[in-house]
Amino acid sequence: MTLENTLSRIDTDLDAALERLKTFLAIPSISTDPAYKPDCDRAADWLVANLQEIGIDAQKRPTPGQPMVTAHVDGPEDAPHLLFYGHYDVQPVDPLELWTQPPFEPIIADGPNGRIIQARGASDDKGQLMTFVEACRAWKAEHGTLPFRITFFFEGEEESGSPSLVPFMEEHADELRADLALICDTGMVAPGVPSIASQLRGMLKDEFTLIGPARDLHSGHYGGPGLNPLREMAHIIASFHDPETGAVAVEGFYEGVEDISDELRRQWEGCGFDEKDYLGAAGYSVAHGEKAYSTLEQQWARPTLEINGLWGGYQGAGTKTVIPSEAHCKLTCRLVGDMDPDALRLKIRKHVEDRLPADCTVRWDQSLDGSKASVMDVTRPEFERARTALTDEWEREAVFTGMGGSIPIAGFFKSILGMDSMLIGFANEDDSIHSPNEKYDVESFHRGIRSWARIMDKLSG
Amino acid sequence: MTLENTLSRIDTDLDAALERLKTFLAIPSISTDPAYKPDCDRAADWLVANLQEIGIDAQKRPTPGQPMVTAHVDGPEDAPHLLFYGHYDVQPVDPLELWTQPPFEPIIADGPNGRIIQARGASDDKGQLMTFVEACRAWKAEHGTLPFRITFFFEGEEESGSPSLVPFMEEHADELRADLALICDTGMVAPGVPSIASQLRGMLKDEFTLIGPARDLHSGHYGGPGLNPLREMAHIIASFHDPETGAVAVEGFYEGVEDISDELRRQWEGCGFDEKDYLGAAGYSVAHGEKAYSTLEQQWARPTLEINGLWGGYQGAGTKTVIPSEAHCKLTCRLVGDMDPDALRLKIRKHVEDRLPADCTVRWDQSLDGSKASVMDVTRPEFERARTALTDEWEREAVFTGMGGSIPIAGFFKSILGMDSMLIGFANEDDSIHSPNEKYDVESFHRGIRSWARIMDKLSG
Repeated sequence: MTLENTLSRIDTDLDAALERLKTFLAIPSISTDPAYKPDCDRAADWLVANLQEIGIDAQKRPTPGQPMVTAHVDGPEDAPHLLFYGHYDVQPVDPLELWTQPPFEPIIADGPNGRIIQARGASDDKGQLMTFVEACRAWKAEHGTLPFRITFFFEGEEESGSPSLVPFMEEHADELRADLALICDTGMVAPGVPSIASQLRGMLKDEFTLIGPARDLHSGHYGGPGLNPLREMAHIIASFHDPETGAVAVEGFYEGVEDISDELRRQWEGCGFDEKDYLGAAGYSVAHGEKAYSTLEQQWARPTLEINGLWGGYQGAGTKTVIPSEAHCKLTCRLVGDMDPDALRLKIRKHVEDRLPADCTVRWDQSLDGSKASVMDVTRPEFERARTALTDEWEREAVFTGMGGSIPIAGFFKSILGMDSMLIGFANEDDSIHSPNEKYDVESFHRGIRSWARIMDKLSG
Repeated sequence: MTLENTLSRIDTDLDAALERLKTFLAIPSISTDPAYKPDCDRAADWLVANLQEIGIDAQKRPTPGQPMVTAHVDGPEDAPHLLFYGHYDVQPVDPLELWTQPPFEPIIADGPNGRIIQARGASDDKGQLMTFVEACRAWKAEHGTLPFRITFFFEGEEESGSPSLVPFMEEHADELRADLALICDTGMVAPGVPSIASQLRGMLKDEFTLIGPARDLHSGHYGGPGLNPLREMAHIIASFHDPETGAVAVEGFYEGVEDISDELRRQWEGCGFDEKDYLGAAGYSVAHGEKAYSTLEQQWARPTLEINGLWGGYQGAGTKTVIPSEAHCKLTCRLVGDMDPDALRLKIRKHVEDRLPADCTVRWDQSLDGSKASVMDVTRPEFERARTALTDEWEREAVFTGMGGSIPIAGFFKSILGMDSMLIGFANEDDSIHSPNEKYDVESFHRGIRSWARIMDKLSG
């Protein structure tokens, strides 16, 4: 019954663990703002010291940006080798006046679902990162060792685009490669429903400019005969979707897309996702995507073509009687399954170019990239074991969920290290990450630590 | 043969007239820039002095903005009463570095069609205004009097929206009312083709915002189910026109629109309008308006619905994965015939509102106005007399033309004073008004003065 002992230890140690988290949260490690560079350094130092205190030989590793923190723990030869990823940097705190307390003076308070710890980074990602570190602390205290080989890999640039991440991973690929990465930076599909994100959508970014007349024209002198690129842009954007089905109408867009399995659909239907809450939070009464798919499938399992920015002509007060020379559009696609961003880019560009009238040309931004969807191989035994462990802890069947967004790190682990990822996190929808009054439920923290202890137990078994 | 004498005097006096114009042009009367307020004042003073020199008792009239210059000349009881309108203010000169000489140091130089006078305001409108004043000078010198009653009415705010014009006209309506207004602020349809603008398009301005989600959303988390107002905006804008015919597809849009007469069409076909030049100057190879109408009809005689500004979402560098809450559109319609801007506004708004999907609302700007088209009554005898005079001077049949743009003053003369206007000007398409190196052909100036002398002769006959 050593697992029970470890779990008891976690319960007893909770207040001390919260104190440790509060110390960590008090460091304003805002990575995007150069003024906080020394604080990012301090946060890395704190993590190194915290791991060393448990007896794990961690190191701060310099990069051109914020330092990485790494540690390697040996274990039995035949035991698995897991990598644990998290990030110690946090988002800026503006607008400061909307916080109910200084964002780097963490408080424990009462929240809608019990006690919360409130501070910038409480959920994203210091609180989540520490669930794993605290599980290791308890395990080590109980057993003297950890159950398998573990590589710790914490970055300090996740909130500022991770510029040093890929170079560091490429340079230290052999050191970082493990059997599987565990990433604790995601949430639960509904409060109390343990979730393993098993598919993340990929992304394709593009931007184009339609060019009509050689210069801005007077809409009196040229209105009528004049081609207006804003009107052409509207026609092209309107042509991207089939108004009847809501599907994307670009030829070949759905190549590589497959419907989800009946088993996954069954899981999703029972996963506790509150459609009304989700839509209502955005001010929607209905879902507006592909009519043939459920709201959750639209978000997790279907690709999109979205217009993120659109502009041209006069935007000031009043009226300017102009036919502008140019119209601009920024778009992103969310990708699923096997969709290939490079091939898709060509299809979208062809769609646009096929629709250009005479006297209208297009200029494409050549600097924007794309990444494939991450679809986890949930048939790997680790996934089922983790699911059982989570189900045990939360007394609620754990579910494989999708994610509408993209987590680039999972893609990099796959493409650079050939390593699959398992994304397990305990954040809740109402954690206000990136917003004022960010919080983490103490239940998420407490049961998160217990969850990792259970998962370690299952994976070592 | 007193007309011949007057014309000879104009020829002899040309160099002196050009010197007077240069003095006028040297005053930087930029009305939109408060720094040039004293210069606007000086330009008004110069005009007063110039008219007084001819023996016309002109006055500077204060307004909350730039002063008006007015003068009233009596004549025989049974003679007609004409008002002459022009403006003494000019556009700003930026970008200064593109001028080949300081813009307020006028020069006489060689241009593509003979000698030119180059300076800001040379064409718009000081040079044109002076054609009439110089004709009066010659007539007065020859006859001792002017041939009919004349009211001179010069403003100094035309290039800055004429804020004082309507209040001044309303306050002094009885003083300003005449039988017909002569406006010299337009151009010739082609070099050497004397033109009377007999129909000006009106304008309707509107602006609307589509509101989708309650706040900006993450395109990962909501992409798919989320309604995107940029996409809805594109659908609505695309629905404004029939892609087959190029006609506006708003129900009832063409109410009050009639095709031009065969006689006018015949005149326009022979008017010397160079379609290829006109389209080429904008970078067009073909006309893009209503397919059933000629390029000139599209510009002069057909209404438009034009998008002048369009924006929403992210416009900065790179990508932001946002579904924005709002999309914005500025539009103007050019009106012809009897189209009623107030009725049309309701039709356009209904068109938009009929196309809003669930969870999408629209907010209209309530501050924007409209004005009907000005269609001159060319059956008035003054029009045929002026046409004969112009034909005599230019040795080329004068034509009744349309104008794509709007000249608000003509509308105000009609609505406030109940007075028709006759628009005759001698500017050429290549005069670069509002642009660097503005010029006026010396031929335009010289024959413009002679034209007014001939028109005065015909109208007094």
